Parts: sequence; structure tokens; C-alpha cells
Amino acid sequence: MKKNNKSLKETCYRCNMMLPESGLVIHTFGNVSVADRERKLFAIKPSGVSYAKLKPEDMVIVDFDSQLVEGNLNPSSDTKTHAFLYKNWGNIEGIVHTHSTYAVAWAQAQKDIPMLGTTHADHLATDIPCTTIMSDDMIGGDYEYQTGVQIVECLLERNLSFGEIEMILVAGHGPFTWGKTAEKAVYNSIILEELARMAYLTLQINPAVPRLKDSLIRKHYERKHGLQAYYGQKKSKQ
Amino acid sequence: MKKNNKSLKETCYRCNMMLPESGLVIHTFGNVSVADRERKLFAIKPSGVSYAKLKPEDMVIVDFDSQLVEGNLNPSSDTKTHAFLYKNWGNIEGIVHTHSTYAVAWAQAQKDIPMLGTTHADHLATDIPCTTIMSDDMIGGDYEYQTGVQIVECLLERNLSFGEIEMILVAGHGPFTWGKTAEKAVYNSIILEELARMAYLTLQINPAVPRLKDSLIRKHYERKHGLQAYYGQKKSKQ
Amino acid sequence: MKKNNKSLKETCYRCNMMLPESGLVIHTFGNVSVADRERKLFAIKPSGVSYAKLKPEDMVIVDFDSQLVEGNLNPSSDTKTHAFLYKNWGNIEGIVHTHSTYAVAWAQAQKDIPMLGTTHADHLATDIPCTTIMSDDMIGGDYEYQTGVQIVECLLERNLSFGEIEMILVAGHGPFTWGKTAEKAVYNSIILEELARMAYLTLQINPAVPRLKDSLIRKHYERKHGLQAYYGQKKSKQ
Amino acid sequence: MKKNNKSLKETCYRCNMMLPESGLVIHTFGNVSVADRERKLFAIKPSGVSYAKLKPEDMVIVDFDSQLVEGNLNPSSDTKTHAFLYKNWGNIEGIVHTHSTYAVAWAQAQKDIPMLGTTHADHLATDIPCTTIMSDDMIGGDYEYQTGVQIVECLLERNLSFGEIEMILVAGHGPFTWGKTAEKAVYNSIILEELARMAYLTLQINPAVPRLKDSLIRKHYERKHGLQAYYGQKKSKQ
Repeated sequence: MKKNNKSLKETCYRCNMMLPESGLVIHTFGNVSVADRERKLFAIKPSGVSYAKLKPEDMVIVDFDSQLVEGNLNPSSDTKTHAFLYKNWGNIEGIVHTHSTYAVAWAQAQKDIPMLGTTHADHLATDIPCTTIMSDDMIGGDYEYQTGVQIVECLLERNLSFGEIEMILVAGHGPFTWGKTAEKAVYNSIILEELARMAYLTLQINPAVPRLKDSLIRKHYERKHGLQAYYGQKKSKQ
Repeated sequence: MKKNNKSLKETCYRCNMMLPESGLVIHTFGNVSVADRERKLFAIKPSGVSYAKLKPEDMVIVDFDSQLVEGNLNPSSDTKTHAFLYKNWGNIEGIVHTHSTYAVAWAQAQKDIPMLGTTHADHLATDIPCTTIMSDDMIGGDYEYQTGVQIVECLLERNLSFGEIEMILVAGHGPFTWGKTAEKAVYNSIILEELARMAYLTLQINPAVPRLKDSLIRKHYERKHGLQAYYGQKKSKQ
Repeated sequence: MKKNNKSLKETCYRCNMMLPESGLVIHTFGNVSVADRERKLFAIKPSGVSYAKLKPEDMVIVDFDSQLVEGNLNPSSDTKTHAFLYKNWGNIEGIVHTHSTYAVAWAQAQKDIPMLGTTHADHLATDIPCTTIMSDDMIGGDYEYQTGVQIVECLLERNLSFGEIEMILVAGHGPFTWGKTAEKAVYNSIILEELARMAYLTLQINPAVPRLKDSLIRKHYERKHGLQAYYGQKKSKQ
Repeated sequence: MKKNNKSLKETCYRCNMMLPESGLVIHTFGNVSVADRERKLFAIKPSGVSYAKLKPEDMVIVDFDSQLVEGNLNPSSDTKTHAFLYKNWGNIEGIVHTHSTYAVAWAQAQKDIPMLGTTHADHLATDIPCTTIMSDDMIGGDYEYQTGVQIVECLLERNLSFGEIEMILVAGHGPFTWGKTAEKAVYNSIILEELARMAYLTLQINPAVPRLKDSLIRKHYERKHGLQAYYGQKKSKQ
């Protein structure tokens, strides 16, 4: 399906509205972007506009260098983070940033979300990474751009692939998720919040519980995402 | 009332939809099956289809050996677990699997839910059992079938009857419940989630609280389920 | 306003329905009764009937000795507890029993809810009492009647007045509340649940926090309930 | 826009109704006032009237010395606290008091809400202050007036400006927020509750987590509120 600016804005609007509908954001918090990789541009929520007043035509279109392409409003203050990720990671077409409560709590606690059960393993095969706190140099520089750098480098340092790990916590800040479509990126934000909540409760009940063992992680991850995946209706990777 | 494939699918659809309505599942998580014990087959949710798009005719009918009887979609990836339970346990006509938050937290914590109050004793007279983590052999074999084996064996080892204990936690995974009807199995999933939440909060408030004493457990369990039961409107075992 | 059986049943139905509407109960849990003190009888929810199916005409009328006066269904299994309280305490016209989550957690934890803030002091001037666990003799006797005995004795032992303390936790079981009207009794159940939740969170944040000091308790309690009360629109003691 | 008594009452009613809609209050808890600084008066919720029954014409108008200007009902019992704040702090036109659960829990725990993440820093650059418990003298005097005194003095002692810190916890009691408009004051109450909840969860996950570092606080606070603010659609301070 051919993407034009109008359809891009509409998808972007629709996916942004999923955030308050899922209880992930209040007021103006959070933002979703949707990319057209061919034309190297993306639509993103305008900055500081509350969801209650948002309209499809308010979406702003910028290129992968964060330059304005179309729109009357300022794009999200996190635009440079999105742009950096699109530029560095081929293939992804949606990015979501929220301040969902449990994911933020883990980010503020500066802890990876440990792999404790199969709900987690159904979605990714590792702990959910939390970056380190950003250095003063990076904060003092181009902050939102550096947030993108920080995310890309965190995965690199841990040898993780953005195609398999579609979610991260930025320490002291909150979650970013992405996906092959914007819908998948939103889905990942919803799942991340639930995994964050389950892990929180699990450790309150039993602080000594070990990480889920590897054979069980692989089993659940592979039955959904492996070459022999048998979950769902097709051999699609969902 | 005679059951045919159509009525089986409709009951199955209706009971599956109770899960998101009760807040027990999001997206595609969870599944309910409904059995016709006479014909030795059951209807079950298709795999990976979200509740928002589910239709009665999507339900899949398989026999107690998990062989397809009727349906255009793949049955739930947990079908073999359901089949094993129906085959081994006479009498039950409904099975439910969810990833409800508090029950999953206890399963991930790898702990039985202790008997701490009369809300619990109104429904079962023992702790809610949590299996051990599955062995690598079983995981590497026919995983979903082995999950059924694990559930049946856990009750056997503890000398518990599936007619009295209609709920279990699979360690690292989540809850399964069952019942004489699918509606009762769904009811048990809702109750389990509430018992899991109450036990969690109780132990946060007072980690040293002892198990409820036996005389009180028996009193509450018997007034609802005993031969002299006087709770409710008839001598039915509810 | 003259009360007859019909109006008693209607009030009782309406007040019972407030419980699921306020999120205090699920399924068949909980019950509200409404008394006509002049005629020494009360209407109460029938046993084991779910709120979704409840009708005004289902309410059962019994006297203060728990003898059936009017109704086709069995009264709540907790009827004898209600009857004992009405018989022993003049003045109260409504009693509520729920299994609301946080209040049950404190009851299961077998702890009084400590006085930690002015929201609590706005409603009562003491900790919310939790009984001891019932003795085996009492459990083996007339259990629901003995629950009433236990509640009355707990207040007596602590020198508390049922006119000032309109809520209690029965250890290992859950909350009972009462009031000069059934509406007030329901209101007390809602407040109790919120106080239980606030106290839980407070002690999680600061386990060492002291009880609220007496001068502040008296100030808040008296401005709502004292002779010089100035809260609200009249010198009513609500 | 010229304010008259009628428009003041309507704004006041509308902002009061935002409290139950946002889940911040139940029953009669909480109150919002809206000031006309030119005429030195404000509209406030009547005392002890439940939100379910509230009407715009019920709002009461009093002056900055708490003297009745217009209205048939008693003003909120907290009126003198509001009046003291309006009188001492130029510029603010709205004040909100709630008993929202997590903010109350921190107030009852008698702890400042520590600065743990950027969601917090987006709104204020310091911990959220909690006063000390009021002295017996102040409680025994004009209690609600003294609550205002306590709030003003707490900010003074800590060298905080009411223009930058628009929220406070009164120890053992609960939160007050304010703003240049009543809508902003309500917004601040919603944000405070969310920050209180996030901080609670963060410390449960990692009790040893340090305060967010200063460079990150300044960055987030300044991008929204500084002279070079670039968040949102205009250089307004939101």
C-alpha cells in the first residue's frame, strides 16, 4: 500500500490515540511516530498537545534528519530521538515513547526488567535492557539526539538486535518501543507495561526468585518467533 | 441439553469473551475450551486471534487427542494441554488459561498461594498449588502435552482431587483453571486472580501471618461444598 | 417515613447494588441488610445469588432472631451475624459485609488498621479494630451467630462504642460495617476500603511512621462529629 | 475575559467535577477554588456536598478574608486555607485539595516525594515538599487558617517559590496544589498523584536508587519552563 503524507498522518493519529485508550498515557505525555522508509520521513505527534484535542491534521511530518517537511505545529520534543533510530535501524516503521507507570518505575529504579516468566519469553528472549544514566556531556549537547545515540549504543554494547528486542528503558526517564509497523510498536508498549508490572509483583512476592531457565525461554520465544513457529495463524512473525 | 458443534462454539466464544470483560487478559492472551464429553471433543479459541476480532465461527473443534474435527483456523497453541486434562479427568467440561497479572506473579515467583483467609476457604480447602519448573526433557519433548502431564502429576503427588481443587499455577508460566462447566472454569479464573491479589497484599502487610487454622478452613469450605452445605439456594455444590 | 416490607426490600436491593457499583464486591460476595427497628425485622440479600441477577423481590425478610418473615429464597448465610448485631445494638438500621480487597488483606494479616492520617480521623477517632481469630469452640458452634458475638465483644473489650466506631475487621475473614441508615453503612464500607489502601501504602513507604498525634485526630474527628461540628451543611453528625 | 460571579461559579463547578472524573476523589472529599484577583474573592465548593449532587449554583463566593460574598451553602471547611494562600501569593488563580490515594500515602508517611525521574523534572525541579506535623498550638488555634500558614512557611523555609513549586503535601493530611488558572491547579493534582505513584513503585523496586542527577533535572525542567523552553507550541510556560 502506497503511503502518502495524508495516510501517514492518519495512521500516526490513530496510533497516538491508542496510548490513552490503553491507559498508557495521561494528558500530553508520550508520542508515536510512523515512518515511510522509502521517502525517508515520518509523521509524529505535535509537542505538548493533549490527546483530548488532537486531530489527524495536527501530525507533523519531518525527515530522518528532523527537518520539517509538512505541518503547522512544532513536532514532539522527542523528534530527534525518533529520527536517529529510523536513520540507524533499517526496517522499523514505528516508534513509541510513553511514561507508562510501571515501565517508568523500572527506568527510574535504573534496573533491567529481569526475565521471570513465559509471558516475557513470548515476546523477547532477554531481560528488557535499561540504559545507564546519560553523561553530563551528552545531556549538555543535543539531548534528544543523544537519547537516540544512547538507545542504539545500549543494544550494541549488549550484542542485542533491534529486530528481536523491540523495547528499552532509558534510565531515569522511561520506555521507548519500536516495530515493523506503528501498530506493533504500540502493542510492544502495552506488553512492556504489563511485563514491568508482573516482574514488579513477582519480586515483591519472592525477591530470591531466579531468572527463568534458558530452555523455557527458548521454547516460548521460538514457538512464536522461530523458524518453526507454530503460534498464531500463519508462519508470519506476528 | 444436547450439545452440537454450533452450540459448543457459541458457548466457547461467549466464555472466551468473559476473559477480557473481567480484565483477566489483554490482546490474544488466554483461552477457554468447552467439552462435549459424550462425543469426546471440545471447542477452543483459535491461536493468536485477538479478542477484539474474535467471532463464534472462529472457534476450532478438536478431539481429546488434539486432532482437528472442524474449523478453518489453527487451534490455540495450548490445545494439547487442554486435551490431556479432558482425557485424564472425567467430569470436567471447561478449561481456562489466562495470563492474569497476580496469578502470573505467584507462578513466576514459583510459590503456592497460601491459605490466608475465608475468601480462599470458601473456594478450596488447600493452598493453591504451584508446579515445579518443567524439566528440560519435558520442555524439549511435546511441550504443551507435557504441561498437561505436569498439571495432572502435581495434583497426584499432593493427593489433591481435580474435583475439589479447580485451579493450579504452572511455575514460571501462569494459571490454569477448570470446572464442571466452562462458566464455572471462568469463574474460577476470576476468583483465583482475586485470591492471588489478596494473598499478595496480606503478606506485604504482615509477612509473618500464619496459615488460616484448620477448623476455620473446614467450616467455610463445608458450608459451601460439604454434604451439609447451607450456602446458596440449593444443596447443589454451586 | 413509614417502612413496610416492600420499601424495606427496595432499599435493601438498592444498597446491595451499590457494592458492585463501588467495586467492593464481585459475583455473589457480600451482603447488605436494612432494618425496621420498630417491627424488629430486617431485609437481607438472598444467599449465593449474583448481583447481576438480583431483583428487589428476591430480598428476604427475617426477624432479629433470624426467623423467616417473608421471602422465597434462603437469606444470606451471614444472616445470624446481622441479627445478633441488630438485637444488641439499638439505633443501627443498616449492616454491610464485603470481601473488599484491601480490607480483607488487613483482616487476613490479623492487624488493626492504624490511624495514620486525617482521612481516617475524619471518620473515626481510633484504629480500625481487628478481632482475634475465632476459637475452635465458637467455630464448631453456631458459627455465624458467634461472628456477631465476636464483633460485639471486640468493641466491648476495647471500650469502643458502636455509635462511634462503625467498622470492624473479623480476623481471617473480612470487614463488617454498620450505620444509622443502610446508605451510611455502605458509605462506611467504601471509606474503610480506601483507609485500608492508604494505610497499606503509607507503611510500605515508611514502616516507621508513628500513629497520628492525638490533637490532630481530635481536631478532625470533632470538626465533623463533635458538638461544635462545622463540617457540612447542618449540625448533623454524618 | 471579564469574570463575574456567575462565570466564577461555573468554572469552579467544572473544575471541581474534574476531580471525580480523574479518579482523584470519592464522595465529598476534596475541593477546588477559583479566584478573581482583581475583586479579591473566590468561588469554592460547598462543604460536605457529594460530587454526584453538586450544581454550579451551589458554589460559594467568599473574599480573601473568608467572608461570605454570595451563596446559600456553607463553603468548604478548608476555605480559610485557600483564602490565606490567595492573600499571600499574588498571581495564583486556582487551588485544589484532594485526598488522592498515593499523594495521601506520602503525606501520611511524612516524607518528601524524591526526585527520581524526568516525569517529575518535567514539572518541577525539586523534591515535592512535605510539611512537618502541625504543632498543637496551631491545631488548637484556627486550624484551617494555620494550614495555610504552614504551607506558606514550608516553602519559605526551603527557599522555594510558589511560582515554580505548585504542589505540597501537608503531613498526616494530604496534598494541596495551585496554579495560574484553576485548570492548571487541577492538572497539578493529577500529575502529583502520578508522580507519587511512580516514586512509590520505584523505591519498592530499588530502595537504594539515588536522586536524579542535577544536569538531567535542569535539562528537563528548562526545556519546558526555562527562558529557552522548546517544549509545546509557544514560549508559554504551559
